[in-house]
Amino acid sequence: MPRILGIDPGSRKTGFGIIEIDGKKIKHVINGRLMVGDGEFADRLRQIFEGLTDLIERYQPDMMAIEKVFLHKNADSALKLGQARGAAICAAVNQQLTVSEYTATQIKKAVVGNGHANKAQIQYMMSVILSLPESPEEDAADALACALTHAHHSAIGGSQSKLPAGMRTTRRGGRYSR
Amino acid sequence: MPRILGIDPGSRKTGFGIIEIDGKKIKHVINGRLMVGDGEFADRLRQIFEGLTDLIERYQPDMMAIEKVFLHKNADSALKLGQARGAAICAAVNQQLTVSEYTATQIKKAVVGNGHANKAQIQYMMSVILSLPESPEEDAADALACALTHAHHSAIGGSQSKLPAGMRTTRRGGRYSR
Repeated sequence: MPRILGIDPGSRKTGFGIIEIDGKKIKHVINGRLMVGDGEFADRLRQIFEGLTDLIERYQPDMMAIEKVFLHKNADSALKLGQARGAAICAAVNQQLTVSEYTATQIKKAVVGNGHANKAQIQYMMSVILSLPESPEEDAADALACALTHAHHSAIGGSQSKLPAGMRTTRRGGRYSR
Repeated sequence: MPRILGIDPGSRKTGFGIIEIDGKKIKHVINGRLMVGDGEFADRLRQIFEGLTDLIERYQPDMMAIEKVFLHKNADSALKLGQARGAAICAAVNQQLTVSEYTATQIKKAVVGNGHANKAQIQYMMSVILSLPESPEEDAADALACALTHAHHSAIGGSQSKLPAGMRTTRRGGRYSR
């Protein structure tokens, strides 16, 4: 059954979430975040790369989905974010995962049904759609939402219409970890 | 004998240069650039990561040096540059190389003796210092200059004063490839 890894990279913390597509059902596998502290920058990139490499080896996702970044306001933070994204994407492509990008609007539409949804709505919807006992943390929720968007757009396990657009998703649980 | 890999990453081409420190002598090992075209962005990051991984496996450098980036004007290009840097740095840390950063001013001072040197001066000085039959391409010259700056600052193989500051370098050749 295909597994999708969603990530929300950052230079200090990187959210991740893995879901599994079982026919028309979507199961939660794991979500959490890698904290890479505020040490030397190359070491932080190494931690992102190695942390995601370990995660991929352990949970064997088949593909990765990541949010597309547009016109970051601040060039300095765009550079740092870019480095973190580069490290995360390398961990995926180094293990033969395909990488797909989705805009924030596509993600919000897919999981909340509204392109202007806020962070709290995404967190809430993730706990509902994936039957989690509590709302995931912000960046882990964004990562899960990204993975769900990929399931929706790539129509894994069925036609697009069968896959989630907000509340229409099959609400099968998985365990909640980290 | 310690080998230093210098790199000048970019989302379309990544310059590289490897030098070897033999006591007070500095030898050129290889320079060139990885062209990653203008295909899908994750594939370009994969090409940077794999290209540098191959280069490191083949030439076994012990450390990597990279130019420190300051306040990029354009946030979109900063993000792209950041991703390329993230991929390049991961290739290095994934093979246990240390990574050092130097500002453009430090690099120009170390190799030309003038913090305001232009690109052509750096290209020319690289061919002189490393006895190359012709000037390296711009990004390969920047990569070599970064590696030389690291040799200078880290004082590998001797005290700092013995190592290059522009024309003062030992002019031992190596072969010029790519």
